[in-house]
Order: sequence, then structure tokens, then C-alpha cells
Amino acid sequence: MINHVFPICQTEMLFKRTLPPRSCEPFGCCKFRKAELSMVNQMKAAKMGQITEEMKIVAKEEDESPKKICRRVAAGRVVITRNMERENAIPLGIGEGLRTKVNANVGTSADLCDLNLEVEKAKIAVKYGADTVMDLSTSGDLDEIRKTMLKAVDVPVGTVPIYQTAIEIIKDKEAIIHMDEDDIFNTIEKHAKDGVDFMTLHCGVTEQIVKRIAKHPRLMGIVSRGGTFLAAWILHHNKENPLYANYDYLLEIAKKYDFALSLGDGLRPGCIFDATDWPQIQELLTIGELVDRAREADVQAIVEGPGHLPLDQIESNVQLEKSICKGAPFYVLGPVVTEIAPGYDHIVGALGGTLAGLAGADFLCYLTPAEHLGLPTLEDVKEGVIVTKIAAHAVDIVKLGSKASARDFVVAKARANLDWKKQIENALDPEKAKKIRSRIKLKTPKTCSMCSQYCAIKILKEALKAEGQCL
Amino acid sequence: MINHVFPICQTEMLFKRTLPPRSCEPFGCCKFRKAELSMVNQMKAAKMGQITEEMKIVAKEEDESPKKICRRVAAGRVVITRNMERENAIPLGIGEGLRTKVNANVGTSADLCDLNLEVEKAKIAVKYGADTVMDLSTSGDLDEIRKTMLKAVDVPVGTVPIYQTAIEIIKDKEAIIHMDEDDIFNTIEKHAKDGVDFMTLHCGVTEQIVKRIAKHPRLMGIVSRGGTFLAAWILHHNKENPLYANYDYLLEIAKKYDFALSLGDGLRPGCIFDATDWPQIQELLTIGELVDRAREADVQAIVEGPGHLPLDQIESNVQLEKSICKGAPFYVLGPVVTEIAPGYDHIVGALGGTLAGLAGADFLCYLTPAEHLGLPTLEDVKEGVIVTKIAAHAVDIVKLGSKASARDFVVAKARANLDWKKQIENALDPEKAKKIRSRIKLKTPKTCSMCSQYCAIKILKEALKAEGQCL
Repeated sequence: MINHVFPICQTEMLFKRTLPPRSCEPFGCCKFRKAELSMVNQMKAAKMGQITEEMKIVAKEEDESPKKICRRVAAGRVVITRNMERENAIPLGIGEGLRTKVNANVGTSADLCDLNLEVEKAKIAVKYGADTVMDLSTSGDLDEIRKTMLKAVDVPVGTVPIYQTAIEIIKDKEAIIHMDEDDIFNTIEKHAKDGVDFMTLHCGVTEQIVKRIAKHPRLMGIVSRGGTFLAAWILHHNKENPLYANYDYLLEIAKKYDFALSLGDGLRPGCIFDATDWPQIQELLTIGELVDRAREADVQAIVEGPGHLPLDQIESNVQLEKSICKGAPFYVLGPVVTEIAPGYDHIVGALGGTLAGLAGADFLCYLTPAEHLGLPTLEDVKEGVIVTKIAAHAVDIVKLGSKASARDFVVAKARANLDWKKQIENALDPEKAKKIRSRIKLKTPKTCSMCSQYCAIKILKEALKAEGQCL
Repeated sequence: MINHVFPICQTEMLFKRTLPPRSCEPFGCCKFRKAELSMVNQMKAAKMGQITEEMKIVAKEEDESPKKICRRVAAGRVVITRNMERENAIPLGIGEGLRTKVNANVGTSADLCDLNLEVEKAKIAVKYGADTVMDLSTSGDLDEIRKTMLKAVDVPVGTVPIYQTAIEIIKDKEAIIHMDEDDIFNTIEKHAKDGVDFMTLHCGVTEQIVKRIAKHPRLMGIVSRGGTFLAAWILHHNKENPLYANYDYLLEIAKKYDFALSLGDGLRPGCIFDATDWPQIQELLTIGELVDRAREADVQAIVEGPGHLPLDQIESNVQLEKSICKGAPFYVLGPVVTEIAPGYDHIVGALGGTLAGLAGADFLCYLTPAEHLGLPTLEDVKEGVIVTKIAAHAVDIVKLGSKASARDFVVAKARANLDWKKQIENALDPEKAKKIRSRIKLKTPKTCSMCSQYCAIKILKEALKAEGQCL
């Protein structure tokens, strides 16, 4: 018996903790109910050294001391996503020293508007390990979709309110440019009242940057939908971005409901040739100031990061965000490290996400095989979540050591024992592993169809046994 | 019009060069025939400053000067895989400063022995970008399989001769331990005569290491099939590994046919908990000496690298190999960076391969979704090659700059122009990209089903146009 880093009992405990069972029945039956949670502003409480119920839940889930979580929330280095109005979500910690989180985007479009399908996607995403879900719907009854989504899953839910503002204007036969400034904030407050836990708000898409892009175009322009809606508005009205101009008002709303700002990367590079350019970094600098103002106002803020970057620019981008935004949790989309793989961009994003996570990114937004091509199917959502989860987990093995690798140890040990049942049970996707293993009839059931009787593990065991040794 | 790094004409030229059209018709019609090539030992010629036809072909394919290729071959930092007996393969350069190469393993097993299927796998692998194919068959008429494979594809073919030696002994109702030393070398010479371009030979699995593993077991023992065959032989006979003991004889054979040694990593860690341990590094040190001896004997050598490593040990492992083996090309399997994703190990391997490539690994061996579970299907082979190709390509964008990213530029430009035809044509897998794009009926054919009329690119273009600007 080899004396390894973790005794098995500890291993199993850790395994359970890092992958808590999720309930995602619609309309309730969740673990944490509003009544059990504190109704206080997390950051304000943290600044006073007050450990809230939410902090305790995060600490338990992360195997970390509540005091440390409290200190990091106070400093804005950990964000707890939980709107005080939300009925049924497990509070989630995102940031320094915590498990790398994964977000899955779902939502309708004008080409495919099916609420049930999108709810199904959200549930599949949670089943395979998504820590949060964003509803990016742009078609149908957006209020109904959002409310349904908030009830259907017990993970934090995010939205991009500007989509609804823009789309409702267009529905009334008008153009995006006719969005009313009040409408923008009214939509945000509506989402907050419904219990949305975090919102992407493109506050850093300033008039200065948009006008510069208009004069000095980059290859892909602006690829953020919300960023583009605001850029079109700014260009037409020749006015500052309302989210930037009225940022204090936005902070007031956020503080009231205690939802987290996810400061959107409206100017993220849309191809590797635009990476780390003037607009992207100018927006980041603006966001750095906005993070400071959010913290002063007791509002938690996450920073969204670059979309497309070549591999060698990922580490420096993460370091830059961490430095400019003083340790605010970094939420990255991808990064996408090559343009030539549509159909496989979930994998491209996982490659970039791995490097970003290693460099310190805290929160990975999944891509699906449909990225750059269309809306994902249920199968695409599952694939996207699993692949991004693999990246996050591989990073956490490095970041968190045995806290994260306990399940790997179980699988490695099962593999060494040719214990196929245990290997498959502990796989990220047991159904798929089982299906692959069983599709070829095995002559020697203890081994697999790759080596059959010439299995290295089996042969070594026999050879050692013959010598009176064992593995 | 943006003035980018590459004018389009150059872009297209580079794109063609980095992805040469492959012919893989069985029995001939290949671009380079034996008669057109030099019949000299590449390393010997290189040491004398003689630029061979093979070096010219590699230089052209890599957009590099023949002189540089020649110097690197002389130093053993670039290996040209090409057996002088091979009739139909395009010589391939692997190593310093060259495009990162991808290998695909195919081959029968006792559980599924179908020559035609394996040939089909090899062809699919080459179609989707595999630079080499290894025939790892362990069942059926191994001579026939190998000869057929060598004719069926025009890329370098590798084998692991010890499989045949071991399996033929077992066929005669004996155990692996009864392998005859002469048989081991006779098999190698047989493979060489058939034209095998590179062979995995586990010369570094020494008696010392095997005996230490028997006394101080590691979690996964030995997971290399060839390594285990030799370990069992060593333990039983209480003798040194014949490939190590008679290494000079091996070098004689290799020199005669000019096939490349791929010095096998018989002691590679089989799980992340065995990573960078005593047996692995002791084997590497032995291999370092064997590389020196190969170079002295005008034999080209590649070094095979670790199987399972956590992400943070990849860079140091690559640096170690490059240092100990004085810049010999590094051929990595994965690395596999987590144990919990059977069914997705092609992606796990691509994550590790990306980090290895960035650190200087030259040659990535694919994994398929079936890794750790069984033999791959045709679809698995395709997936495995594409995913590994993505990793290699993302690395090459960093390593080789515009030489590698020309095709990305074409796709990015097409994306900016909403030119779907060009995006799809230039995708790594156009069929898959097309299928995803077309599965939802589009209301606005210029955009995709993700955003439909709210396409960021379209809206920004319109907004800029209204202002008299354009992207």
C-alpha cells in the first residue's frame, strides 16, 4: 500500500465537498431558502468584519475559513453572487483562492425562441457542473423567460439588461439608438427586483473609445452585443454612455439589491489580431476606476475579460486586470486562441481558459461547439460545460492541491486496480465513459479493447507477483 | 482598409504552404518518390554541410532556409523522419523552429482486429492534419498490416517493434518473458526493411529502474505497453534491457536504413500523482546519454515525454528534456492533466499539449475520446486529430507568428465581413462548421442564429455608416 498525500477517507470527503449535489427542480426544493440567509449587503458586512450566512456557506463549500472569505469580500477580491431578492440560489463565492468557476450562457434568439428548450439547457449546464447560468435571451417574453430561469436553477443567474432595453425599443418599430436613458436603468432595476444575482453592464464603453474606434477601426470592430448597442447609441446621440455617466445611480440600485456588477468587456478583441490593443486596454483602465467606485459604495464587482487572444498574451492580460482592478475577480470568455476552429471553439476556449486560470482568472465563461456559428443545442451545452469544467479543474489541481485533486486520486487508484466501475462512476461524464468502454465486445473483461490481454497494468502486476512483489 | 501585418497575397501563399495538400491513395500517386530523394544518411550529410533533397523539401514546407535545416539536423535539434527504404512518404522535419507536428496512433487489438478499419483511421487522421501515423497493432498479421499502412499514407509511419516480438512469442503459446534477444533485433530490422520511418524503442527502461519500481512501487506502476514487456523480461531474466545492453547494435541498424529512434518513455507517469518522480527522471537521464551516442553514430533521435502531469509541471519537464537531451525534438503524449475525464481525454491531452508546445515540445501525440477506455472509432480518430491540431496551431501562432496565423487572418477578415462561405471554407473542419450553421432556419441570412438581427458586427457597421465611417 502506497502512502500517498491523501488518505482515502479525506479524499472522499473532499470529493463530496468540491462537487455538491445540485437540485434544479423547477419552482423550489432548493437547499438554501431566502429565509435562511442574511438580508444584509455582503460587502458592507464584510467591511465591518461581520461574517454572514452567505460567507459561511461559501467557506464550507470551499473548505476555507469564514474569516478569510470575509476579509476577501471586504477587499473586493472575492465576490459573493447573491441578490437579496433571489428566492432559491446557493450563494457562490468567486475570486482569490477559491475554486475556478464556470458559467454557461443560454437564451433565445429571433431565429429560435423556445423557453422550455432554454430552461432545459440551463438544467443540463448545472447537471454537468456549471456554477452559474446567464440568460442572454433576445426574443420572446423576456420577463417571463428570466423569471422562469431564476426559478428553474439553484445557481446564481446573470443577465445583460441592455439586451431587453434595446429589443423592446426595436419591437416598438424603433431603432436601438432610440433607447431612453431612463429605460436602461428601469430595466436594470426590474432585473434586480426579480432576483438576478449578477449583471453584465458595459460601463467602460465610453464615448472617447467609441469615437476612436470609429476613426481608427480595428479588424473586428466591436463584437460584444451590449457594447455595440451602446456604441451605436453613443455615436448617434454624440453623448456619453449612460451607464458610465450615471454610474453612481447604477451603484445605488446594485447596493439596494446586492447584486454583483459584472463590468462588461464591450471592447474585447473579436480576433487575435485585435488583441491587447488601445480600445481594450483603455476600457480596462476605465473599469479599474469603476471597480474602485463600486467598492467605496459597498457594491461587489467582477471584471469581464478579453475574448480573443493569442496564447502568449493571456498571462499578461490576467496580470494587467489583477493589477489595474486591484484583485477584482476576473471573468474570462475563452480566451479564444485561434480563429480557424469554428465547430470546436469550446475546445479553443478551454485551451485559453486553462492558461487564464493558471495566471489567476477566477471565472471561465464556457463556449460551445456552436460559438461563431449559431445557437447551441442541448448536446452543445453539455459539451461546452464539460470541456470548460475540465480546464477549470486542471487549473484547480495546481491552485488548490489536494482540495481539488481528491477525485483524480480515486480515479487513478481505480485505474491501477483495473476497477472499471469506480473509474466510470467518478468520471465527469460517466454515461459517455461507459458507452465508449462497452461498445466493443471484450475478450478479457478485466482489461479494455485498446490492449486486451497485452494490458501493461495487468502484465506488470503478473510479473511482479512472479517475483514475490506487488504494486 | 486596415493595413495589417500580412497583405492578403502573402497570407494565401502561407496558408497553402502550412497546409500542403496530402494524397493518401493506397499504392502510390504520392508527391515524392524514392527515386527523387537522396539515398544518404541525413545526419551524416548534415554534419558535412551537405544539403539533401529531404532538407530542401523540409525547408520549403517550413518556409525556412535549407542551410538552417541542415545545421539543425547536424546538431540533432531537427529530425527528418524518412527511412531510405520507404517508397512513398514526404520527408518531415520535426524539431526546433519548425511547425509543431501531430501524430495519430492507429492499430488493431485482440478485441477488434480489422485491417481495413485501421487503414481507414490512418487516412482520416491524415485528411484532418496528422503529420505522422503510428501503427500500434497488436493483433492479426502484423507484417501485412504494417506493409499496408506504409503504402496507404504518404506521411512518415512509426511503429513499436517490441509489440510484434512479444506477441509472436505469445502466439506460440509462450509468455512475453520468453522473448529472445535476437528476435527483438530481428523484428526491428524487419520493420526497417519495410520502410518504417521512426520506431519507439524503450532503451531507457534499465534493469536498475525496473528493480527500483519493483521495490518502491508508484501508484500506476508502468503504463507503457512496450516498457512493461521489457520490464517483465528484465525481472524474469534478471538481466539488462537488451535494447540498452546492445544499443550500439541498434544504432548500426538505424544508421543503415536511416530511420529515426523515438526513445520511448517506458517509465512515463501513468497518473498525475506519479509525475516527475525518480523512475521518470532517471529514465530521462539515461535517454540523454543515449541521444549523445545516437548523434555520434549519425542516427537521428527523438525523445518521448511524460504521459500524465499536472499543468504546473509541464514547462519544467519540457525544459528538463531540452536540457538533458541537448535540444533533441520532444515528442509528448498529452500530457494528461487530470484523471477524471475519460471520454474527453483528447481534450485533456490538448490542454497539456498546448502548455508543452508553448514550452518547446515539438511533436504532439494525439489522444482520442476513447483513451483509457478502449480502441477509438473513425469518428474518435477525427476528433482526436482535430483537437490536437488546434493545440499545435495555437502554439504555432506564438512560435512562428504570421507564418502560422495567415489562415486565422483570412477567417477573422471573413468574420468581420460576415462572409460565411469563406469562414467555413477556411475552418479546420468545414463540414462540421457548415452543419452547425445550417441547422436552424435563419431569418436574416447575413447573420447567424446566435444574435439574428441583433448581430454586433452588423449593427456597428450600420451605426458607423450612418456617421459616414466604415470598418
